[in-house]
Amino acid sequence: MNDIFASLESEVRSYSRTWPTTFDKAGGSWLYGEDGTPYLDFFAGAGALNYGHNNPRLKRKLIEYIERDGVTHGLDQATAAKREFLETIDEKLLKPRGLDYKVQFPGPTGTNSVESALKLVRKITGRESIISFTNAFHGMTLGSLSVTGNSMKRGGAGIPLVHSTPMPYDNYFDGQYPDFLYFERLLEDSGSGLNEPAAVIVETLQGEGGINSSRPEWLRGLRELCDKHGMLLIVDDVQMGCGRTGPFFSFEEAGITPDIVCLSKSIGGYGMPLALTLIKSEHDVWEPGEHNGTFRGNNPAFVTASEALKLYWSDDALQKSTIAKGERVGQVIGEIADKYEGAQAKGRGLARGLGFEDPETAGKISKAAFDRKLILETSGPQSEVIKIMPPLTVSDEELEQGLQIIVDSVQAVLA
Amino acid sequence: MNDIFASLESEVRSYSRTWPTTFDKAGGSWLYGEDGTPYLDFFAGAGALNYGHNNPRLKRKLIEYIERDGVTHGLDQATAAKREFLETIDEKLLKPRGLDYKVQFPGPTGTNSVESALKLVRKITGRESIISFTNAFHGMTLGSLSVTGNSMKRGGAGIPLVHSTPMPYDNYFDGQYPDFLYFERLLEDSGSGLNEPAAVIVETLQGEGGINSSRPEWLRGLRELCDKHGMLLIVDDVQMGCGRTGPFFSFEEAGITPDIVCLSKSIGGYGMPLALTLIKSEHDVWEPGEHNGTFRGNNPAFVTASEALKLYWSDDALQKSTIAKGERVGQVIGEIADKYEGAQAKGRGLARGLGFEDPETAGKISKAAFDRKLILETSGPQSEVIKIMPPLTVSDEELEQGLQIIVDSVQAVLA
Amino acid sequence: MNDIFASLESEVRSYSRTWPTTFDKAGGSWLYGEDGTPYLDFFAGAGALNYGHNNPRLKRKLIEYIERDGVTHGLDQATAAKREFLETIDEKLLKPRGLDYKVQFPGPTGTNSVESALKLVRKITGRESIISFTNAFHGMTLGSLSVTGNSMKRGGAGIPLVHSTPMPYDNYFDGQYPDFLYFERLLEDSGSGLNEPAAVIVETLQGEGGINSSRPEWLRGLRELCDKHGMLLIVDDVQMGCGRTGPFFSFEEAGITPDIVCLSKSIGGYGMPLALTLIKSEHDVWEPGEHNGTFRGNNPAFVTASEALKLYWSDDALQKSTIAKGERVGQVIGEIADKYEGAQAKGRGLARGLGFEDPETAGKISKAAFDRKLILETSGPQSEVIKIMPPLTVSDEELEQGLQIIVDSVQAVLA
Amino acid sequence: MNDIFASLESEVRSYSRTWPTTFDKAGGSWLYGEDGTPYLDFFAGAGALNYGHNNPRLKRKLIEYIERDGVTHGLDQATAAKREFLETIDEKLLKPRGLDYKVQFPGPTGTNSVESALKLVRKITGRESIISFTNAFHGMTLGSLSVTGNSMKRGGAGIPLVHSTPMPYDNYFDGQYPDFLYFERLLEDSGSGLNEPAAVIVETLQGEGGINSSRPEWLRGLRELCDKHGMLLIVDDVQMGCGRTGPFFSFEEAGITPDIVCLSKSIGGYGMPLALTLIKSEHDVWEPGEHNGTFRGNNPAFVTASEALKLYWSDDALQKSTIAKGERVGQVIGEIADKYEGAQAKGRGLARGLGFEDPETAGKISKAAFDRKLILETSGPQSEVIKIMPPLTVSDEELEQGLQIIVDSVQAVLA
Repeated sequence: MNDIFASLESEVRSYSRTWPTTFDKAGGSWLYGEDGTPYLDFFAGAGALNYGHNNPRLKRKLIEYIERDGVTHGLDQATAAKREFLETIDEKLLKPRGLDYKVQFPGPTGTNSVESALKLVRKITGRESIISFTNAFHGMTLGSLSVTGNSMKRGGAGIPLVHSTPMPYDNYFDGQYPDFLYFERLLEDSGSGLNEPAAVIVETLQGEGGINSSRPEWLRGLRELCDKHGMLLIVDDVQMGCGRTGPFFSFEEAGITPDIVCLSKSIGGYGMPLALTLIKSEHDVWEPGEHNGTFRGNNPAFVTASEALKLYWSDDALQKSTIAKGERVGQVIGEIADKYEGAQAKGRGLARGLGFEDPETAGKISKAAFDRKLILETSGPQSEVIKIMPPLTVSDEELEQGLQIIVDSVQAVLA
Repeated sequence: MNDIFASLESEVRSYSRTWPTTFDKAGGSWLYGEDGTPYLDFFAGAGALNYGHNNPRLKRKLIEYIERDGVTHGLDQATAAKREFLETIDEKLLKPRGLDYKVQFPGPTGTNSVESALKLVRKITGRESIISFTNAFHGMTLGSLSVTGNSMKRGGAGIPLVHSTPMPYDNYFDGQYPDFLYFERLLEDSGSGLNEPAAVIVETLQGEGGINSSRPEWLRGLRELCDKHGMLLIVDDVQMGCGRTGPFFSFEEAGITPDIVCLSKSIGGYGMPLALTLIKSEHDVWEPGEHNGTFRGNNPAFVTASEALKLYWSDDALQKSTIAKGERVGQVIGEIADKYEGAQAKGRGLARGLGFEDPETAGKISKAAFDRKLILETSGPQSEVIKIMPPLTVSDEELEQGLQIIVDSVQAVLA
Repeated sequence: MNDIFASLESEVRSYSRTWPTTFDKAGGSWLYGEDGTPYLDFFAGAGALNYGHNNPRLKRKLIEYIERDGVTHGLDQATAAKREFLETIDEKLLKPRGLDYKVQFPGPTGTNSVESALKLVRKITGRESIISFTNAFHGMTLGSLSVTGNSMKRGGAGIPLVHSTPMPYDNYFDGQYPDFLYFERLLEDSGSGLNEPAAVIVETLQGEGGINSSRPEWLRGLRELCDKHGMLLIVDDVQMGCGRTGPFFSFEEAGITPDIVCLSKSIGGYGMPLALTLIKSEHDVWEPGEHNGTFRGNNPAFVTASEALKLYWSDDALQKSTIAKGERVGQVIGEIADKYEGAQAKGRGLARGLGFEDPETAGKISKAAFDRKLILETSGPQSEVIKIMPPLTVSDEELEQGLQIIVDSVQAVLA
Repeated sequence: MNDIFASLESEVRSYSRTWPTTFDKAGGSWLYGEDGTPYLDFFAGAGALNYGHNNPRLKRKLIEYIERDGVTHGLDQATAAKREFLETIDEKLLKPRGLDYKVQFPGPTGTNSVESALKLVRKITGRESIISFTNAFHGMTLGSLSVTGNSMKRGGAGIPLVHSTPMPYDNYFDGQYPDFLYFERLLEDSGSGLNEPAAVIVETLQGEGGINSSRPEWLRGLRELCDKHGMLLIVDDVQMGCGRTGPFFSFEEAGITPDIVCLSKSIGGYGMPLALTLIKSEHDVWEPGEHNGTFRGNNPAFVTASEALKLYWSDDALQKSTIAKGERVGQVIGEIADKYEGAQAKGRGLARGLGFEDPETAGKISKAAFDRKLILETSGPQSEVIKIMPPLTVSDEELEQGLQIIVDSVQAVLA
């Protein structure tokens, strides 16, 4: 591996250390090293590649658009590509689900979407405080970081992170205590010392936090709690939206409607930067230009985003296949968990994890998997969970191949 | 214009109101409406299109890369495209200027770069406070917003923006008072009440703030002040870097070396999202992964970015032509300023402005220009300045054409 | 009642509304109206008059000191009166209990002591965050208010109160869940999002919060938790110290040693302003003058404070009598609680309370008691608790008289 | 000097180091050591003893009140002593000056008054930010500290002090630049980045900051600026009120009316803790009990306070004598300043100072004065100013005696 990465890139670099090779090409579920070595990718760009690398149908549309000199950079000007994307969102996402959302383009990364959501809920309510959850991850800019749990990342802020209070995520106490026990008491007790929250921000399944899934009834309880206490509900679907858990939105299973939804990662379809903030129309109180960003009109991403929605969300085929593949992963990791003391199978849909008691185990398995040419990331506060997130378009054969490597790697490390 | 923009896009939309047409294609200095109407673009994606729309040589490289299935989304993994980009940065930017910077990829927008810079200077110094300047613009996420001047945008935060203190930018008092008079007194007076600053963040030419240019001697004075008082110096070159003022970095003319440089907008070359944070190697104290972002490895942008550096920064041709064209713009707007009471010619290089006393004038001229098919933005705290920022690759003929429209539009509004 | 109070005093006035008469003289357990009407005082200056009004032995010493022109105002200069007070603290409080504290005079009010404690723990640890408890009350200046629970009082700050997180006080969930369940998980989980706390601040019995008593084992658990996680422990004994619960320090029963103890109210003995901050000597890292205050050397209060310590804390008579009288109060209010559905007997020592489900009940009882010439305050987030805090020097006869009025008043309101 | 101060009192102690002796008695302008040594006091309890130590007429009233068992501790209950104080305030202070203020008793120290003022202006305006001035001193609790300049004291907070911005005090640039030049530009420029201020807090003469006096026209300009920009004006008259500069309120000379006035120190008359917050009646928007404090009803201090107002503020004798004595001090220190290069005579009324270029000089003079039995404090950010603040009741003979010691001490140090 060429060492200009070591000599010139900042020490902040991370994945180039985890997977010490130089990649060149990619396709579907595969990344290829410069020497042509294929690596099966069960990380999928941290959830940005739900439709695989360089998806050929999206690629065709993308090249067509570039070839014909469609607008590339459009700020938030009206363009034909953006219109088509808005129409497609309306037709494929909102109308079928009866959702009355306005669409904001907040700058093309997840954290920009979260920042816009936090600003908006504060503007709407006139309150400052946000409730986040233990082991949440919402991004690295200052607003998003304040609602993120990881202490190393929080420490990077260099200033005290305030205006947020963490509450226990679902199952934080293994179901021994009633949901929202503490949260609700603090809200109801005018002497509790909890600043009145503008909103709650939640991931329905915490990816970075360790593949912690919440139950539909917990999410419904949270929605009710928000309604009861005048708090807005933000669902950060940056990583778990776009079909990762089965349905397009990760909250559909619970039957709830958030006030604001943050989308990014796979919304662009092809792995190019894009983000949306969906806002219940009654809450769209922005002034023109009150939040902006140079790259909020990334038109090539609009093109691939539209095509991805048309291809994959015109029927429920992908949703069903994701659930089925997810169950297959669940079965395999369940068997592993049964076999190894303290191992725990986690997640739902194609966001699956395997947690271990010894926080070093997951890292060793990731390394063993890489030796076997499988890209596998860890997550959780101590990186103690193997994170299994293949593209949703992974073939059954690829899936089995990857799962076998996982089985072998676990075996190699724990045997 | 199709009204899905009005019905479905958030009220936050802005430029689609300023230029109420739907664009479809683009090339060089031109945007084209759906009906084929050409618009001469003197805004250039707010500085993101220094090399023009859909620059054909970059386009060729981009399509080649996509066609051959180069990695599209790479997190911060090592890729061949990224290696080439790092090598090109080293060869075309750093070595020729004797700059000892490490390169961070902080997420592909300017505000992400600024946020990473603010976090890093706080980590390095153990201090929280940042000095910004009057009418600064650094971005819309919480950290960047705290060092931004515009009160409407600040108000959008919904929480008090703290840990920053504004100081007067160069010429804030029309040269009547010594540079840094107040700033230096506050630093030297241990009873001043100014929290000890970690760093100063500055644009050498304020684009959003009203095309306010600082003098080289002011920037040198600022660098000295930073050295004397242990403050780090961050230059936000997001809009004014990449040759906008002539040299690649806007601070080159002053002969200073910032501790941290924020780059985005035109660094990708083709208008696709990309951002860099350049860090003096002695200050690269990041932990691996302490700041990250899903789209920090936007490989197609690496490809066009490398090609842009090779094409335009292997010699000083672009720099010279930018300066020459800038002088031509300066001449024309100087004549306008001479002609109209209270009008003021501003800026340097190809970042030029024309300020008016009546804050409504600039908006009217922008509208008159759009009627004449010229895209022209306003800036300044009251949008009182016409902002003239054509692509650096604008032809002399196009330049004259645009300038004539400006002359005509001013005439139409003020006559 | 003369209406200059209504016409000239700010709307913030409070107790002059609760007890609408003008008092003139006082002695022991009694306040006297201008017309000579005696009122039995079961509020005792919110705990500032543990030794009764105008205690004759303290009065004699006070007058002697004033008569002989002892220094009145002494900043923090060394004076004979202060030396005697320091010696008395050492002999009567610290040595007998084996306590290694340094004594700070932080300005003569409880909130000044709390502010000094918060500053010091932040200085010692380099951390900002403080853990407070639900329904805590620590004072009205900005630092103290940030760790206070009452939402009306917090709202008065006019800025977001940050750098503090409330945790459930003992019995917040009626003993259904393990102590420190949530607190400890947050501390142990590096992904919890809880900013690492500098310290915990606690009242062993919450007076303003509703006469909520904590168990000794809970306090011991808290001390252990602090030790385990490197947090300092501040006990705010402003209201519950000076013998209110029996022993001089309210934490003695639990056998713990706080890192910092805040004292005020009855420490001066005679009701004159005075406050102390006791600091474990290893933590006394103040710079000279780093915290100060004009009235920190209130010498007449040193004189009465010394005498009070000598009189009441040379043996355990007062402690025993307080406990015995407290038990008598407990018996009476226990009977009331048994009789009335939803009524709850609370507290320990001579800090007792009677809580009611209907938040208006306590206020009505207070009013009924005042009609019967008994001064009785309410507390709790909704003022739903009758607060019974006679002077510790109350005679048995006075105690019975007051208890009978309470019984009668409850009867009158609830019958 | 008994070393229990060193062994038991916190390292934060300060004046006992400056003046290393143990005082016992006091009277008028004199403090007496335990051995009977008289010390002439030109510090006057940091301005808390404007009427001298143990003023015999106040003493008589105080002893009478204590002897007759007047209420000592009264929370904010109505008492006869408080009524008389309110009536006296009305008659002696408010009516003669045509001032329409409500009186708040905020806890008996200057910082409590400042905290109440800051809370109230934020409540009134709904804004958070406060403008303070370079070298301001307003107190040591968190709110007051945030508007205080001294960096050592600010550092003691242990958290970033925010929501305040320092502006240059009068003459900060030696009159070279127009008053409020920078402040007004920041207010008028909607892009300045200055958070919209709720209020300005100012001392008309900065005592701790180095005896910096502001001109009447500057104060009038400040009042106008506040009116123009919707900012409230708080005058902190804790140290400079109660006649220190001549008139009762230090702002009378300028002919302005603040929205809020903070009083403490000498308001009690006898050196006992007391503080007031005067609030224009239209701004008295407090809820009952929204700000409180146990010792806000320090009745013995009400008694001496009333008597002091009657004695000294029924005519203009004290005011005239203060001005005359101040001029005499000004003459002597003017001569010193003329004699020694770099020395500067400062202040007005009986708040005078002598500044030196070498920051160690003032401390040496203070020490030389103490050797000559004169109590003389230093002030300023580097303690570079001798602070001359005798009681206003100092006799001419005592004044000359003290001034001669100052002359001698300066001579001894600088010769």
